[in-house]
Amino acid sequence: MLSNIRIVLVQTFHPGNIGAAARAMKTMGLTNLVLVNPRSFPDEEATRLAAGATDVLENARVVTSLEAAVQDCVQVIGASARLRSLPLPHFDEPDEMAEQVILNAANAPVALVFGRERSGLTNDEIRCCTHQVSIPANPEYGILNLSQAVQILAYETHRAWRKRAGNDFTYQRPLDATPPSREQFVHFQDHLGRLMQQSGFLTQPHARTEEQLQALFARAQPSRKELSLLRGLLSAFEAHFPKQP
Amino acid sequence: MLSNIRIVLVQTFHPGNIGAAARAMKTMGLTNLVLVNPRSFPDEEATRLAAGATDVLENARVVTSLEAAVQDCVQVIGASARLRSLPLPHFDEPDEMAEQVILNAANAPVALVFGRERSGLTNDEIRCCTHQVSIPANPEYGILNLSQAVQILAYETHRAWRKRAGNDFTYQRPLDATPPSREQFVHFQDHLGRLMQQSGFLTQPHARTEEQLQALFARAQPSRKELSLLRGLLSAFEAHFPKQP
Repeated sequence: MLSNIRIVLVQTFHPGNIGAAARAMKTMGLTNLVLVNPRSFPDEEATRLAAGATDVLENARVVTSLEAAVQDCVQVIGASARLRSLPLPHFDEPDEMAEQVILNAANAPVALVFGRERSGLTNDEIRCCTHQVSIPANPEYGILNLSQAVQILAYETHRAWRKRAGNDFTYQRPLDATPPSREQFVHFQDHLGRLMQQSGFLTQPHARTEEQLQALFARAQPSRKELSLLRGLLSAFEAHFPKQP
Repeated sequence: MLSNIRIVLVQTFHPGNIGAAARAMKTMGLTNLVLVNPRSFPDEEATRLAAGATDVLENARVVTSLEAAVQDCVQVIGASARLRSLPLPHFDEPDEMAEQVILNAANAPVALVFGRERSGLTNDEIRCCTHQVSIPANPEYGILNLSQAVQILAYETHRAWRKRAGNDFTYQRPLDATPPSREQFVHFQDHLGRLMQQSGFLTQPHARTEEQLQALFARAQPSRKELSLLRGLLSAFEAHFPKQP
């Protein structure tokens, strides 16, 4: 599915942007890059900024027209900071675009087309597109660097893919520490409650205060190990109290 | 609200990343940058890559510890590719993080903290944080360039801000062409229907075929001007039909 998503860069001026775009793509699981008349490619600067994504550069297809880049695509989305007067269907929000892209890319190639750094896409190139998308930005300064625009749209595409049921993405999570059993947690609460009394903190049974503090600890969701540390701390405090009857 | 959101870069090695991060921030309406022990700043490379965001660099605060950068913040989110064993509350998804950030930033400063290019944040620095966030990425190659990570989290923050009721963001849209009146549209449909018959396309009244084509034109939402062009086109076709009784 992600392999059906094609990133097309038209007449990119700075080879560094090509490299950075390749890296941006690969971090989001995209590998299909097409370059239309790049000013300088291959180029050391592209290789340098691609970092671990030089394979994307090596597999990139270089063509001489946008038409050649997208003729087999069922959807061609032109990313443009400046909307043209040619009223193509337009996505206000990249996430809406990404949902459609993921749907269509299940079956056939879909292209995201990025124009030149300074002048974007020509009207002829817009005519190769089925849709336009803009990245909502600061109205006072809304022109993103080319590779940053690629990163954002690739990110949104990945996000739409993640959110679709049935994909095989798993989140990277911290090692889940074992939670305590209910019994262990109740022992802790009893210990804490006892010390609240014995320390003189609660001069008379104050169910509310005790509940509030207990709720704090419950919300913290201590692991088994953390609970054990807390018990040890309470015991260390307790050792200084006067002997209890 | 957005002015309460602080981007903190810890010991950034490449000044180019500082510049690119400043640009990324500004495109998303963020202007509050703090640098903790940057290796080289100010620097020509930072200025060059900042493009139109050199004001963000000029206003950046430089400090010698992360604690100094975030001590007045009510929420400090550490962006990290590698989750540490210190189990801070963790956002699986940057959009969930961004919603909280926008809520909190209404009233007090909130910091997004980014670590070193190679090694991220130290354990001591994680201890300055209240939360962690990762950017879900390709498990085979998931380390984004620092300024790209800033761009994505800034973008998500801007998105959360856009989606909140009451903000003053307006989408950039193509000049809205005037839609036709209902009467004008019905005249077009009648004209089209007539020509479907007279051209021999519909040998007998085929309500279904006629409906389907009419629906296509309705879906295209032609502007008044486009409808006028279509009428002219139909008339040009019509001129070649045999005279109708």
